[in-house]
Amino acid sequence: MSLIRDLSDDEARAALPQKWGSVAPGVIPAYVAEMDFAPAPVVRDVLVDAVRRGVTGYPPNDDLGLGAAFSAFAGRHWGWSPPEKATVVTGDVIGGIHLALDVLCPPGPVVVPLPCYPPFREVVAVAGRELVPVLTDPDAATAGLDLEGLEGAFAGGARTLVLCSPHNPLGRVWTRPELESVRDLTARYGVRVVVDEIHAPLVLPGATFTPYLSVDPTAVLVTSPSKAFNTPGLHAALVVVLDPAEQERLRTVPLPMNNLYSPLGMLAAVAAYTDGDPWVADLVDRLDQQRTLLGKLLAERLPQARMRPLEATYLPWIDLRAYGVDDLAGPALALGLRLAPGQSFQPGLPGHARLNLATSPERLTTIVDRLAASIQAPTP
Amino acid sequence: MSLIRDLSDDEARAALPQKWGSVAPGVIPAYVAEMDFAPAPVVRDVLVDAVRRGVTGYPPNDDLGLGAAFSAFAGRHWGWSPPEKATVVTGDVIGGIHLALDVLCPPGPVVVPLPCYPPFREVVAVAGRELVPVLTDPDAATAGLDLEGLEGAFAGGARTLVLCSPHNPLGRVWTRPELESVRDLTARYGVRVVVDEIHAPLVLPGATFTPYLSVDPTAVLVTSPSKAFNTPGLHAALVVVLDPAEQERLRTVPLPMNNLYSPLGMLAAVAAYTDGDPWVADLVDRLDQQRTLLGKLLAERLPQARMRPLEATYLPWIDLRAYGVDDLAGPALALGLRLAPGQSFQPGLPGHARLNLATSPERLTTIVDRLAASIQAPTP
Repeated sequence: MSLIRDLSDDEARAALPQKWGSVAPGVIPAYVAEMDFAPAPVVRDVLVDAVRRGVTGYPPNDDLGLGAAFSAFAGRHWGWSPPEKATVVTGDVIGGIHLALDVLCPPGPVVVPLPCYPPFREVVAVAGRELVPVLTDPDAATAGLDLEGLEGAFAGGARTLVLCSPHNPLGRVWTRPELESVRDLTARYGVRVVVDEIHAPLVLPGATFTPYLSVDPTAVLVTSPSKAFNTPGLHAALVVVLDPAEQERLRTVPLPMNNLYSPLGMLAAVAAYTDGDPWVADLVDRLDQQRTLLGKLLAERLPQARMRPLEATYLPWIDLRAYGVDDLAGPALALGLRLAPGQSFQPGLPGHARLNLATSPERLTTIVDRLAASIQAPTP
Repeated sequence: MSLIRDLSDDEARAALPQKWGSVAPGVIPAYVAEMDFAPAPVVRDVLVDAVRRGVTGYPPNDDLGLGAAFSAFAGRHWGWSPPEKATVVTGDVIGGIHLALDVLCPPGPVVVPLPCYPPFREVVAVAGRELVPVLTDPDAATAGLDLEGLEGAFAGGARTLVLCSPHNPLGRVWTRPELESVRDLTARYGVRVVVDEIHAPLVLPGATFTPYLSVDPTAVLVTSPSKAFNTPGLHAALVVVLDPAEQERLRTVPLPMNNLYSPLGMLAAVAAYTDGDPWVADLVDRLDQQRTLLGKLLAERLPQARMRPLEATYLPWIDLRAYGVDDLAGPALALGLRLAPGQSFQPGLPGHARLNLATSPERLTTIVDRLAASIQAPTP
C-alpha cells in the first residue's frame, strides 16, 4: 500500500497554513509548492518524539549526521556522493544562496535564468548584487538554457550563475551534456555556479538526474529534503562545497549570517535522507500518475494548452497563449482556483501558469475544470 | 505542584543539542542561555498535535494570532498593550534587530552598550553598520547605562541604540526613570532605539519591568517567548512598532529578508503567550529559589565573588577579579564546568563570567564547587 495519503480539505487547512490558509473555503490552492498529502511517517514520528522530549532549543554545533545522511542518499539515488564534511547546515535554499553569494561568489552581477522561483531574483537584490536575467524562449521545442544569452551576460561581467536543477517552473531535468555545456561556459569566464537541487528527489520516470557537482566540482550546491518531504517550515537546508577551506569559511561566518535553522528540521532531514526512500518511491509513483492524469485532462478540456514535459517536480508549467489569455490568476481565483501566474516567474511573460498536481486526483480534475472555465470567463 | 521539572543529564542531552551536545559527558554546561527543564506542557502539547497533523510547511501569511496573544500577555503582565497589528513575525531576536536596522533605522553608526550578548555586535557588522561600543563601568555600585558615553556616541554621529531590557548579562531591570533618561537623550539626537525585551517575562521578585515602548512609542521592540519557554530553535520572534506605515514596510520586505520563521514556532508562541502564565509563574518562583541558593553558595565558597543583583533572567554575571583571575573558562572546563567567559560579552574585560542557574539545585551546587575549584587550579 502506498505511503501517500491524501489530506481532506479540513486536514489540509490544519496542516498547511500558508497554502490552505491563504484561500477562502471552496478555493483550491494550486500555487504554493507544497503537497496535499499526510506527512511522511518517518519524518512525523521523529518529530513527535523530538517535541515530546523538548528538542526546541538552539541548533547544535555539529550537523547531527545530516552530511553523512545526505551523502548516503545521494549515493543510493544518483550514484554520486559528496564527502560527509562537505555539508554545511542552513535554514532554507534561499538562505543558502544568500550565504553563498556573500561568502563564496566573486564580485559582480549575478545571472538568473528566467522563468524562476521569484525569491531567486529577490535574494540577488537583497545580497546587494546586480541581477542579470537571461530569458528562456517560451516557443522553443525544448525548454533549454540559453547558452548564448548566458555567454552574453558573462561577457558583460556577470560572475555568478544561479541554476535551478531540476528546473522549477520549467519541469526540466537537465541532461549531463547540457550541464557540461554550462560547466564549460562558466569555466571559460570564471563564473561560479550556485545550483539549487531541491527538486532532485522528485525526478519522474523517464528522466535521469545528474548532480551538478559531479560535473563541476567547483560549484556550490544548495538543497534540502523539504520539497520531497513537505517540510519547508522546519528550516533545514544544506550548502555543499567540496573545498575544505570553503567549508570552513561557511562554518565560521558570524552567527547572524546563518543561525535560522532548527534542530527539528535537522532531525527530520536526517530521517528523510536515511529512512525516506520508500516514501520517495511512493511519492514519485503517485506524482507520475498525477502527471498522466493531468495530460489526459488537459487533452480533453484544454487541447490547445501546452504543458512542458514534466520531467521532475509536481509543478507543471502550462502555456495558455493559444487561448489568447494574458494572466489567468484573477479569473481562475473567481472560479475557485488559485494558481501561480507565469508573470511571477518571469515578469512580462503572458499566458503562462504554474499549477500544482501534488493533490488528490479529484482535486486535480477540479483544478483543470476551473482552469478551463476561467478561460471562457469574461475578464473581471 | 510546580510545572517545572528538572531534566536528568540524559534527558538534557536528548533535548538540548547545543547546550548539552557541546560538552563531554560529566561536564556541566552553564553557558548557553537555555534551561535544563522539561518543556512547558502547554507548548509541548501544541507541538505534538501540530507535528502529528503535519504542520511542517511554509509559515502562513497571517500571524496565527500571535500579535493578539502578545498584546494580551503584555497587558496582563505589564499593564501595557500594543495594538494586535503592531506585531510582525520574524525568526529570532537577532534577525529582528537585523530587519530593524535594514528597514527602520536611520543611516549611521549603531551604539551597543557592553557587555552584551555577542551576536548584538555581530549583527551590526553583518548589517553593514559601524559599531560604537559604550562600556558599562564594572566597578559602579549599580550597573547602569553610561548616559555620558551614550551622549558622546550620539554626538559623534550614531543614530541607533540597541538596548537590552532586562539586561543580559548584567541582570538589570532598568527602572522607568532610567528608561525615560534614555528616551530623552535619544530624542534629543534623533536616535532610534531598538530594544530587545526577550527576558521580560523572567523578571524576578523585587523588580518591576517597564516596557520601553510604553516610555518611548517611537522605539522598535524585538522580543520572543523563546527565552521563557526554552524554544529558541523553533524560530518565532516579534518585531513590534506602533507606526502602521512602518508595520506595513516590515510586512512587505522581499521574502529573503524575513522568511525564516516557522509555523511551529508561531503556534508555540501563541500557546505560550495565551496559556503560559502558570508556567511563567512557576518558573519565576524556581529561578528566584535558585538565585537565593546561588547567593548562599557564593557567600560560602567564593566570598570575594561579586554577583550583580540578579533582577531578571537566569544568567548571573559574576565578577571574580578579587581573586586575581583573568579568564576562567579554560580552568573551569578542565574541572567539568563550561561557563561563558566575560570576554565574550565585552572583549578585554577581565575576571568576569556569566553562569546559568536554570538547572537543578544539585547541578547549581556543583557549578559553584567547580567554579571555586577552578580559581584554586593552576592556569593550564
